[in-house]
Amino acid sequence: MIVIMRRDASEHAIEHVQQVLRQRGLTPHPSRGVERTVIGVLGPAGPSGMPGALNGITPELGEALEALPQVESVVRVSKPYKLASREFHPEPTRVHIAAPAGEIVVGGEDVVMMAGPCTVESEEQLLAAAHAARAGGATVLRGGAYKPSTSPYGFRGLGVAGLELLSAARMATGMAVVTEVMTPADVDLVCQHADLLQIGARNMQNYYLLDEVGRAGKPVLLKRGLSATIEEWLLAAEYILAHGNSRVILCERGIRTFEPATRNTVDINAVPLIKQLSHLPIIVDPSQGTGKRSLVGGVSLAAIAAGADGLIVEIHPHPDAALKDGAQSLTLEEFAALTPRVRAVAVAVERSWAPPSTSAAVA
Amino acid sequence: MIVIMRRDASEHAIEHVQQVLRQRGLTPHPSRGVERTVIGVLGPAGPSGMPGALNGITPELGEALEALPQVESVVRVSKPYKLASREFHPEPTRVHIAAPAGEIVVGGEDVVMMAGPCTVESEEQLLAAAHAARAGGATVLRGGAYKPSTSPYGFRGLGVAGLELLSAARMATGMAVVTEVMTPADVDLVCQHADLLQIGARNMQNYYLLDEVGRAGKPVLLKRGLSATIEEWLLAAEYILAHGNSRVILCERGIRTFEPATRNTVDINAVPLIKQLSHLPIIVDPSQGTGKRSLVGGVSLAAIAAGADGLIVEIHPHPDAALKDGAQSLTLEEFAALTPRVRAVAVAVERSWAPPSTSAAVA
Amino acid sequence: MIVIMRRDASEHAIEHVQQVLRQRGLTPHPSRGVERTVIGVLGPAGPSGMPGALNGITPELGEALEALPQVESVVRVSKPYKLASREFHPEPTRVHIAAPAGEIVVGGEDVVMMAGPCTVESEEQLLAAAHAARAGGATVLRGGAYKPSTSPYGFRGLGVAGLELLSAARMATGMAVVTEVMTPADVDLVCQHADLLQIGARNMQNYYLLDEVGRAGKPVLLKRGLSATIEEWLLAAEYILAHGNSRVILCERGIRTFEPATRNTVDINAVPLIKQLSHLPIIVDPSQGTGKRSLVGGVSLAAIAAGADGLIVEIHPHPDAALKDGAQSLTLEEFAALTPRVRAVAVAVERSWAPPSTSAAVA
Amino acid sequence: MIVIMRRDASEHAIEHVQQVLRQRGLTPHPSRGVERTVIGVLGPAGPSGMPGALNGITPELGEALEALPQVESVVRVSKPYKLASREFHPEPTRVHIAAPAGEIVVGGEDVVMMAGPCTVESEEQLLAAAHAARAGGATVLRGGAYKPSTSPYGFRGLGVAGLELLSAARMATGMAVVTEVMTPADVDLVCQHADLLQIGARNMQNYYLLDEVGRAGKPVLLKRGLSATIEEWLLAAEYILAHGNSRVILCERGIRTFEPATRNTVDINAVPLIKQLSHLPIIVDPSQGTGKRSLVGGVSLAAIAAGADGLIVEIHPHPDAALKDGAQSLTLEEFAALTPRVRAVAVAVERSWAPPSTSAAVA
Repeated sequence: MIVIMRRDASEHAIEHVQQVLRQRGLTPHPSRGVERTVIGVLGPAGPSGMPGALNGITPELGEALEALPQVESVVRVSKPYKLASREFHPEPTRVHIAAPAGEIVVGGEDVVMMAGPCTVESEEQLLAAAHAARAGGATVLRGGAYKPSTSPYGFRGLGVAGLELLSAARMATGMAVVTEVMTPADVDLVCQHADLLQIGARNMQNYYLLDEVGRAGKPVLLKRGLSATIEEWLLAAEYILAHGNSRVILCERGIRTFEPATRNTVDINAVPLIKQLSHLPIIVDPSQGTGKRSLVGGVSLAAIAAGADGLIVEIHPHPDAALKDGAQSLTLEEFAALTPRVRAVAVAVERSWAPPSTSAAVA
Repeated sequence: MIVIMRRDASEHAIEHVQQVLRQRGLTPHPSRGVERTVIGVLGPAGPSGMPGALNGITPELGEALEALPQVESVVRVSKPYKLASREFHPEPTRVHIAAPAGEIVVGGEDVVMMAGPCTVESEEQLLAAAHAARAGGATVLRGGAYKPSTSPYGFRGLGVAGLELLSAARMATGMAVVTEVMTPADVDLVCQHADLLQIGARNMQNYYLLDEVGRAGKPVLLKRGLSATIEEWLLAAEYILAHGNSRVILCERGIRTFEPATRNTVDINAVPLIKQLSHLPIIVDPSQGTGKRSLVGGVSLAAIAAGADGLIVEIHPHPDAALKDGAQSLTLEEFAALTPRVRAVAVAVERSWAPPSTSAAVA
Repeated sequence: MIVIMRRDASEHAIEHVQQVLRQRGLTPHPSRGVERTVIGVLGPAGPSGMPGALNGITPELGEALEALPQVESVVRVSKPYKLASREFHPEPTRVHIAAPAGEIVVGGEDVVMMAGPCTVESEEQLLAAAHAARAGGATVLRGGAYKPSTSPYGFRGLGVAGLELLSAARMATGMAVVTEVMTPADVDLVCQHADLLQIGARNMQNYYLLDEVGRAGKPVLLKRGLSATIEEWLLAAEYILAHGNSRVILCERGIRTFEPATRNTVDINAVPLIKQLSHLPIIVDPSQGTGKRSLVGGVSLAAIAAGADGLIVEIHPHPDAALKDGAQSLTLEEFAALTPRVRAVAVAVERSWAPPSTSAAVA
Repeated sequence: MIVIMRRDASEHAIEHVQQVLRQRGLTPHPSRGVERTVIGVLGPAGPSGMPGALNGITPELGEALEALPQVESVVRVSKPYKLASREFHPEPTRVHIAAPAGEIVVGGEDVVMMAGPCTVESEEQLLAAAHAARAGGATVLRGGAYKPSTSPYGFRGLGVAGLELLSAARMATGMAVVTEVMTPADVDLVCQHADLLQIGARNMQNYYLLDEVGRAGKPVLLKRGLSATIEEWLLAAEYILAHGNSRVILCERGIRTFEPATRNTVDINAVPLIKQLSHLPIIVDPSQGTGKRSLVGGVSLAAIAAGADGLIVEIHPHPDAALKDGAQSLTLEEFAALTPRVRAVAVAVERSWAPPSTSAAVA
């Protein structure tokens, strides 16, 4: 951490900052420039490998220092996350997900396809989507039983009945199931039906929920918040990792910008950047990310080309009758047409995609 | 709701949209322009005063219609919220908050000042801030017992001990207490210590929490989400109102923009706009809204001039020793200097502010 | 255009809107719903193929109608651009660019690579970059002679001397030259040295400049403004097209968002969306779009996979000595390593890329 | 400037950074922390009062350093602007504007009101607006002769005829005239008719235009760009100041955010922040800033309360017949009702406002 004093800072103010640092067990290291003085902050040597941020040089310290007289600004040097960072864990993490048809690995050679309806509506709808997903090479079935609805009058999902339909589809297809859990009290129940717990964008900073899925011992799909910075997103992952659950998959699902033509703006820069900052795998949701069926294909290919470890795509047997998000769901035919194109791009960037036959199933 | 067909839409596609509408009990009303056809959607007459949005013409319908072939776009005509809207409740709502020194009314003639530390740290810190708040004319004491921390290694508040300190300060000063509740399981406990329940920005779309505070029978301070539109914010209020709890106060606390010089950007336009769209009172948080102590004064005055019903300001006896958000907390002296200026602006816009003596206390 | 009246609009107000429309030669078409009245606006039949927006139903009309009493809002139905739209020009446009080594086509089968230094600094620097660009398969050489500098104390380019170096490099390599023109008075001069005129992001709404390049008879590379919506971008293209210059290439170069980790956020959604809304070709600038050399590769591949017609990439023989934008420039070696990967993705999405030998040169 | 090395940076890389600095005549000052090394950069002592940024430690240097191997990031310490900064010019600047009825001062005790139509449409319209503006206490008449139009088919203003009408209204009322100049070639002509040259938001980074108005010797009203940071805005002012023209008035006119309910979002934080960072006066445009007539009043009062030195408000005798921006223009009656409220708030924040009689006129 570096404290930048104002141009006109008095000797008294410069000394005061240093006193505050010493009182907290830290070592000030002032440099006097032509224009102004800056004070480097050195922490005590902590336990091996522990970053300063965890050992006294916290973001809260920065805020406290900014409040001192004649301080212009404070610059952080260390990243505030550790377990999620590539600096402390140089090897990429492969997240293993259990499934009846055999384990799925996210973050390895294979690009992983997750697909299914936005919301579980009925057995017929779910099974039709699941079989089409599987036929197209998806190994993870998505489907919402608990749905965030912007309006209190909107459809909030089938709840337990939806979870049970997902379990049945799981056994029928051999696929793993990913579904959203929205509140700490539901984590145990959802764990009984899901192989991968989804934290939705609106809950990315619901810390009680992050704590709870951190303890749950299941892999977690952590969606980026609507206006979360990449640092905040990795700190949300850090919450889960700090509970000893290292199986976190990040999901870029579009951020909120000024552009009204699409529902969200997929931050494609985030894909290679996350690969540099973190060891965690990252997938992309082109359905939420664009909000328009006609853009899902192009953005899916872009995500894989950028280095994403997989996709999560909304599909529906009859999008025009969907209870939710029909406008962004692919038909089953569109999905079937998309998957060979995804595979071609995956191969072009030297990734593979297990063909449907090998990921096949309990039959 | 209005369905806009593509320029080249076929008769078949236009008829298909109308069929889907009729199947849902709605009446299509097509207009054929020189360039393209648009189809108005009329709902059945519902119970008196019920908007179409609640009676068949839902946002989900819009999404379903957008997914139909050759539909260009769908335009909503009705607002998706009802109980929060001024159209259905033309009179401004006055929210009554109980306090030992007598009831406080937000949304009436008086501008209401809420002040206190960001986070409850100790009895000394809290009482010093509370007495200064009261002396400056504040009638509501703020203070966080449960704090959202971006980092898992940050300070998350004193919890129950913090609530108990707030209760003690409440009795010592006669002020009402506002504090944040972060998860449904804590609502009952927080209700025992708080007169006004705060929903923080990160939880504005935590629907389980909104449901729970809707049922709790206490007034609620609903902060705007970091990137929430005004419509989403009013829909979050609608969640609470739909449970029969009509005591909701909105709080503008800055939105996330591209500007790096301030922590957030206070959306001052929102103050008069909320007054037009809704009957609910609105206050402004200049501390979170700017992130800089030196901007709190100017933005406080601006908020009152724009028509806000009050302010919520962070103050601290020793900001440079604060555990959280010291850089945006006023010293007690700065707060004492600010309040007469707030009062002068309140008078200039024909609001009043009960002098400290009348809001005084259990003694 | 559709006028939506307030719920409580009087008969008088509804009639007033219709009068205003009739006075302007338009036909009102009211629909009375359960909740409120909406009034469709029909224009007179204009010359064949002319959209209503150009024939009386202008955006200005919308603004005027919104100002009438008891009007809630006005919804546009027609797009405000015509010549740039796919509705009026269904076939994709191929932009032909002259070059010593033979014409280059943007928007056809081949993906086109443009590369070169951010800024022309010297003959050595430019030629080294140009030869490396050409060796990697680029057919268009980029290089700034006039540079927008945020600071008045920054480097603003070599000016005429830079243009002359570009001309020399053009002849030495056979490549076409693209360079920015910043002010109307320079258009003639820049035309003498450039095969493709670049309009920079800061000038996307410099209408006098758009008029002038519209008249200049050279193809134009139109960068998206930092916070321009897609509609505004296509309207800027419309300015050029309206002068009879149909050779416009759009360039997505990142938009401004809240994310501080990258210089800009590449709006990858824009690539397939532009393909649907417009017939104009679109390329992507991953250097400006990310601001970080380490992200340029991933985003380049993503752009091609999403359907972009080409790339424009900053390269420099010695980025750490660059006068401008070194942090986002690829070294010549990095560029050489990138191009085969771009080609592999192009092939995967069924595009081609003329090998360097066929685009080769005057020799 | 401070260079932050990666955690794992080699001695070789650390030495390389220092060599590059020494080659540029700068002095490296490394600090080795527990986690990583940071290198302070000291510049040579320049001419008295010259900031490092102008004397070797430029933003371009930062970019070059970021491109060096194993550099994590580079932090600027000095502000990149000098003439616009409060550090170098502690006293607030008062901008004097000539007018027939006597000089107007912006940035002094008096709050200054500028008002008039968005666009000059006719002699009748302009004179009606001008007389109403003057009657309400405005001393500067606004009106566009050259208008930026998003669409090439929109109204672009009356041009020279509009300027002449402004001159006539100036003589008839004694008011100063502010009008926009959009391209360098028009500066001389506009100077003949205007007392204050307006640079519009879209041209804030049109550097050739900034140079030209810098040389013109007239005061300049510099609007903030739609997505300009405060630093970029002050750098645009620096362009003008660097030509020796110190009469620059900043105008906050709303920034672009995700919020669709208003045309722009007025950044009220910018008002007190500009007062701290710069000595230049700042006014607010609530008409462009909100886009809605019904919000202009509240935001006007907020601006004055926040410390703005004035307002620029669009008014029109018949907004529903306006050729442009009718929806955000006040009627003359609404303006008359607003001005006493503005005056009351000005007095409440210890500013004055010369009553219309004293600002009265050539008679």
